[in-house]
Amino acid sequence: MEIQDQVDYVSGKTRVFGIVGHPIEQVRSPEMFTAEFRRRGQDAILVPLHVLPEDFDAALPQLLRVQNLGGLVFTIPYKVRACAFAETVGEQGRVVGAINALARGGNGRWRADIFDGLGCVEAFRRRDIPFAAKRVMLLGAGGAGSAIAVAIGYERPASLRIFDVDAERAAALGNKVAYANPGLDVQTGAPTTEDVDILLNASPVGMLGDARLPIEIATLAREMVVFDAIVKPERTPLLTLAEQCGCTTVYGREMMRGQISRMVDFFLA
Amino acid sequence: MEIQDQVDYVSGKTRVFGIVGHPIEQVRSPEMFTAEFRRRGQDAILVPLHVLPEDFDAALPQLLRVQNLGGLVFTIPYKVRACAFAETVGEQGRVVGAINALARGGNGRWRADIFDGLGCVEAFRRRDIPFAAKRVMLLGAGGAGSAIAVAIGYERPASLRIFDVDAERAAALGNKVAYANPGLDVQTGAPTTEDVDILLNASPVGMLGDARLPIEIATLAREMVVFDAIVKPERTPLLTLAEQCGCTTVYGREMMRGQISRMVDFFLA
Repeated sequence: MEIQDQVDYVSGKTRVFGIVGHPIEQVRSPEMFTAEFRRRGQDAILVPLHVLPEDFDAALPQLLRVQNLGGLVFTIPYKVRACAFAETVGEQGRVVGAINALARGGNGRWRADIFDGLGCVEAFRRRDIPFAAKRVMLLGAGGAGSAIAVAIGYERPASLRIFDVDAERAAALGNKVAYANPGLDVQTGAPTTEDVDILLNASPVGMLGDARLPIEIATLAREMVVFDAIVKPERTPLLTLAEQCGCTTVYGREMMRGQISRMVDFFLA
Repeated sequence: MEIQDQVDYVSGKTRVFGIVGHPIEQVRSPEMFTAEFRRRGQDAILVPLHVLPEDFDAALPQLLRVQNLGGLVFTIPYKVRACAFAETVGEQGRVVGAINALARGGNGRWRADIFDGLGCVEAFRRRDIPFAAKRVMLLGAGGAGSAIAVAIGYERPASLRIFDVDAERAAALGNKVAYANPGLDVQTGAPTTEDVDILLNASPVGMLGDARLPIEIATLAREMVVFDAIVKPERTPLLTLAEQCGCTTVYGREMMRGQISRMVDFFLA
């Protein structure tokens, strides 16, 4: 009777975490974070919280007052607005100007940082592919691209070239990364695969049914490492071409996994 | 990889329910409601929400704005205060003056009612023991006792006698039940087991390590049905005596199960 009567994954003692976004149905964080908490023996669960843009500023302070709320993850469109609710923001979050995790500190103060970029670095680390001394080409300077550029900046690459269809956005990001890493060779401008060791796509080109490549190329040198931040589909047109050319490929899902691991470290710190 | 990476019981599409209380760790609703949702094939989960008394009035309107929140359960000390956030309150909730469930209506309006008493009635129904035409003695006129008295009032017993150590509280409850059920024989005063078919304990006497009986008796007629609303321990001193005397016994856990079933009906209506 006990067994049918109750589930074993939530109780009055469970620490609750949430992902706040609009829309919310497409997020993958609930099942993935909760699995990571379980793997670490934590009695914790992460649930979706669909908060409307007009409610966000009033809802956040109240959600943070729920005593057994351990932390919040933020997704579109809240990564910038969420900064207002953090008492301390980590270095990467400050440079990017956005956060995607807010954790309850031991003293009840809320700590925040952004982990998209750290997730990308973590994915490469797990593959034993260092960014240090590599020539990196990044496509896309939006939310994910910004975080990735900032995180890679701290990894001391030989150079980092940033392209975005919005040249101003690419330039602004380039300035941020250069400012945070004096002496680092940061360039912005047209995309290229010449003299590039690692090619990263953080643009939306290739997402879902989009058959386009984020850069006009017919072939890639097999020594290159090619990464795509896109999760759906897992094998984007860019990754398909890269594998045909014999390149090493790193998938968006690996970045997601790396990010979740780093964020759970942050939540449990 | 998929399997280790994610759990199967929460996703971005999951409807979230909560139990709001202070304290919260001792509640059993998360594991029991979530099991009931699963049994009915619903992608839903109920999580604990520890809200402090000083935060309650500000937190509630914001929690109710979370778009994928399907409903809230209220426990101590919020069953009365929660009434303020309901747009419509069911008949039993109105008579008791308290609610323990708030459900999102199809039109976005919040419906509320109290189910403690209905849970007791449901537990007896599942045992095929009707209250109709029975002489009922109820011990305890607090939160649980009030809801039980009101729910039993609608079942048309031959009589309902209510005792509470606070005689005024018993009288007030007796008046409520009599008012809601014209013609019903409602008495209040000293507890008795004479001319009683069903004896119900809704007082805290016998809870946890308390070895006392809620009524001074040495024996019980074997024809009697004896119920105890207490969940911890499952077999209270009163139920132990009743079983020694050959009485039929109904457990607090059965009421809890009955209540959860009726509340999930209410949430999914």
